[in-house]
Amino acid sequence: MEHELKDVIKRCDEAIKREDFDTLLHYYTEDAILVVKPGMVARGKVEIKKAYIAIADYFNNSLVPTQGEMLILEAGDTALVISQTMLDSDKEDSEYSMDRRATYVFKKNSQGQWLCAIDNSYGTDLINTTAQI
Amino acid sequence: MEHELKDVIKRCDEAIKREDFDTLLHYYTEDAILVVKPGMVARGKVEIKKAYIAIADYFNNSLVPTQGEMLILEAGDTALVISQTMLDSDKEDSEYSMDRRATYVFKKNSQGQWLCAIDNSYGTDLINTTAQI
Repeated sequence: MEHELKDVIKRCDEAIKREDFDTLLHYYTEDAILVVKPGMVARGKVEIKKAYIAIADYFNNSLVPTQGEMLILEAGDTALVISQTMLDSDKEDSEYSMDRRATYVFKKNSQGQWLCAIDNSYGTDLINTTAQI
Repeated sequence: MEHELKDVIKRCDEAIKREDFDTLLHYYTEDAILVVKPGMVARGKVEIKKAYIAIADYFNNSLVPTQGEMLILEAGDTALVISQTMLDSDKEDSEYSMDRRATYVFKKNSQGQWLCAIDNSYGTDLINTTAQI
């Protein structure tokens, strides 16, 4: 059986594709963080929504994220998702990698829903740069 | 100022070097998991202690872990640590990388202590293997 988090992440990817950021934000904790790019973090739902609007704009409103190989390490109400995240868009000159090894931390709330607390699509590549976050 | 998690991780590394696994286990949550190697996970303190004893034995009781570049992504009571983890030992033929890009998930408990929930020194390399966990 597929882990329920796979379905959550699929619904997030679909919401990003539709640019339905209000639906997307339902899958984040109140104090979630999103690594927008090396050296830049959005904190909380307001900043994350603004970041996604800017990201959509950067990719000419054509961004389609999908996941390849995925591994879910679950410990009680916390899970670390390691995933091959692929980004597709009609932008031809992105300065960011479109094929990433992402790290996502999810927490299960008291209603049993998995919510993203730390969204870092750059994975461990962040420490290969000189980024200071 | 250095993040308090850097000090926690340093104390863990020192406990591993001393093979003082009872002290080490104080820094883990009750339901923590440790990725022992690709495809093998230890769950809970009893299994994690057994795993560390086996790891110490594998490295001829000479294992010394240290951290290089480290990035801490903190979201409320949850933190993802991305760290260059270096392992040194007198074993000359380890089949595992001694220079890793690790991912550690910590949770802050009600007493304000950071405890490790997910200890994955292999980072995103786990999905470059065919490992099934």
